[in-house]
Amino acid sequence: MKNKKIVNNIIQVFKKIKKKNKLKGHTPLHEPIFFGSEVLNLKKCIQSTFVSTNGKFIIKFEKLLKNFTKAKYVVPVVNGTSALHLALISLNVSRNHEVLMASLNFVASANATRYLGAIPHFIDSEENTFGIDSLKLEEYLNKNSVVKNNMCINKKTKRIIKAIIITHIFGHPSKVDKIIKIAKKFKLKVIEDASEGLGSYFNGKHVGTFADIGTMSFNGNKIITTGGGGAILTNNINIAKAIKHLSSTAKLPHRWEYNYDMIGYNYRLPNLNAALGCAQFNSIHKFIKAKRKLYLSYEKYFKNFQEAYIKKEPSKCISNYWFQTLVLRKANINLRNVILRELNKIGLQARPVWTLNHKLKHFSKFPKMDLSQAEILEKKIINIPSSANLSLFK
Amino acid sequence: MKNKKIVNNIIQVFKKIKKKNKLKGHTPLHEPIFFGSEVLNLKKCIQSTFVSTNGKFIIKFEKLLKNFTKAKYVVPVVNGTSALHLALISLNVSRNHEVLMASLNFVASANATRYLGAIPHFIDSEENTFGIDSLKLEEYLNKNSVVKNNMCINKKTKRIIKAIIITHIFGHPSKVDKIIKIAKKFKLKVIEDASEGLGSYFNGKHVGTFADIGTMSFNGNKIITTGGGGAILTNNINIAKAIKHLSSTAKLPHRWEYNYDMIGYNYRLPNLNAALGCAQFNSIHKFIKAKRKLYLSYEKYFKNFQEAYIKKEPSKCISNYWFQTLVLRKANINLRNVILRELNKIGLQARPVWTLNHKLKHFSKFPKMDLSQAEILEKKIINIPSSANLSLFK
Repeated sequence: MKNKKIVNNIIQVFKKIKKKNKLKGHTPLHEPIFFGSEVLNLKKCIQSTFVSTNGKFIIKFEKLLKNFTKAKYVVPVVNGTSALHLALISLNVSRNHEVLMASLNFVASANATRYLGAIPHFIDSEENTFGIDSLKLEEYLNKNSVVKNNMCINKKTKRIIKAIIITHIFGHPSKVDKIIKIAKKFKLKVIEDASEGLGSYFNGKHVGTFADIGTMSFNGNKIITTGGGGAILTNNINIAKAIKHLSSTAKLPHRWEYNYDMIGYNYRLPNLNAALGCAQFNSIHKFIKAKRKLYLSYEKYFKNFQEAYIKKEPSKCISNYWFQTLVLRKANINLRNVILRELNKIGLQARPVWTLNHKLKHFSKFPKMDLSQAEILEKKIINIPSSANLSLFK
Repeated sequence: MKNKKIVNNIIQVFKKIKKKNKLKGHTPLHEPIFFGSEVLNLKKCIQSTFVSTNGKFIIKFEKLLKNFTKAKYVVPVVNGTSALHLALISLNVSRNHEVLMASLNFVASANATRYLGAIPHFIDSEENTFGIDSLKLEEYLNKNSVVKNNMCINKKTKRIIKAIIITHIFGHPSKVDKIIKIAKKFKLKVIEDASEGLGSYFNGKHVGTFADIGTMSFNGNKIITTGGGGAILTNNINIAKAIKHLSSTAKLPHRWEYNYDMIGYNYRLPNLNAALGCAQFNSIHKFIKAKRKLYLSYEKYFKNFQEAYIKKEPSKCISNYWFQTLVLRKANINLRNVILRELNKIGLQARPVWTLNHKLKHFSKFPKMDLSQAEILEKKIINIPSSANLSLFK
């Protein structure tokens, strides 16, 4: 009976939100907004006849991303997965290397690692940032690895732990400072997956620009979209050049000869998709403002709740609040599925976090630390409608 | 002196073509044409808000491709390379398997093979089709391989030869009937790379529909373009289902849960790019007609030439004439580079064929048969301006 009351209270709040905002029918978790020069840019792109791997919009999109994030170099690619794939290749991650990553994560990191025959090695997360628990990570590496010849060796598997992927979950910055410090101590390369973090800052600096390489996504559900798209950020010119080449067919420049000097991955973002991205960029400040405002609205509704709270950006951070999250208190984690069902029933799309990666059958044999916090977080997180237009248009 | 005269004669013909057709400035090898509903479709796509991995244009593009090629199943993807990659995965090609392919080929086949840690094994080509020499292939396999337990074993390397990729070069159909017969005899899976062959037919049947799997490309330089794009064709429902799943993030269908049952490749064609492709499809018959007409124009100019000829579609075939080719007679192969230079100098973009794959440093250690015909062909082939608008608009 107590449980039923808690669920009812939560659903009542959402019904109130629905009513007040006149939300009819199905409200999706996230939808893109096009109210700028999207169609005009696409028309210009068609008129230029450059719709494919070359064109002015690609160059412009690169510049816009550079200016916005302050990354020195940007390489646009077809999506966030391909960005992670090239990032791993350019850091020389290869067969049987281990790559540390949170188990509470989108599958792209583990997938891209497996493309190379490398091994995902799962680590625990913290409630504060939804990202990697830096304290637990350091303790774990102290105990389970040893640095030899500038390489971190997993004592148990004897494999090289080559890199760590830091994902900024739902746009909330992870503790990049602490994690990168640990990575340096253990000679790990660092990739920062900022796919969900365009417009998020840690200590005033844009996420994705702290590590050796940052990655981005502009999928349809992201803050800005190129249809399909992604990018690599780096401040290292050699990495930038290498990734630019890898993202092409690795053709050597010549007026007519077709010569290639390595395996290329053909991951370049088409000019057509960049044209859409350039138009979306015009609205980015509005989108972020709207999403931050949406957080405040949700927060107001739930501030006196004992049973759950709305996720707030970590301290010293600015979050783009890509996804809004209702976090259940530990006592109520058994209610997640009922709440999910009820929210979806009243037309508000709600979703749990991704199934923890180490629980997926095809990743279950890979190394992992104690993941007790991630296990609890998985049961606490409910993502709720997060589109910028929910606050923009009311 | 004789050589100089030959080059002069050839260049004079092209100057005449230029003049008669009032070609000013730079005439590219191939450019896309947009005179249909391209902009309208893109506008509709934006208005629908579905620009990414879902949308009506993806479904429509699939249907258009099915109707046009008569393939039973079609899976649209981000480009031709990704189509080859998924094709190889779905046929269980993996580490240390060998994959037969022509050395005279675009690098995508060899690259996609290497993504999997498999080994390209290069075979020779014939002048008649520019594709695999079937007679030489059979003789080579008879001598160098043995079939054991339904597997073809390379006698020398002891590795399994798992598959063969048949590429329809420049849109000219290869001898699919003979090659597939040989493949069956030697228990090889067959991929037909029809990236350049939309609108080409062997014995009245569309290329890409003879083998286990066909692949397509809709890059900016192809007969129709989606900006970046490709597709997989198959008549096998199990292969179609597997590839569809592999092309996604391999998420299992559920209203809110994020569960995945294998490694996905995130290669889906965005709806935005499909919208462009649907519009382009409206003009495909015009494009092919124009390109076939362009062949006849070139052919008329060169029909009395002893030193070179314009490539004609193989017998029993209809070619889309994607790329037009001036083929030098054997006595004149030393003139290729001079002609290339002169043509580019007068503003007609001309290119040689791709550097033979076995000559690329990173592929040079892989197995190959005698490639003498490909070596000669490489020196004979000059691709000349091939855009549909060269015949459409005059």
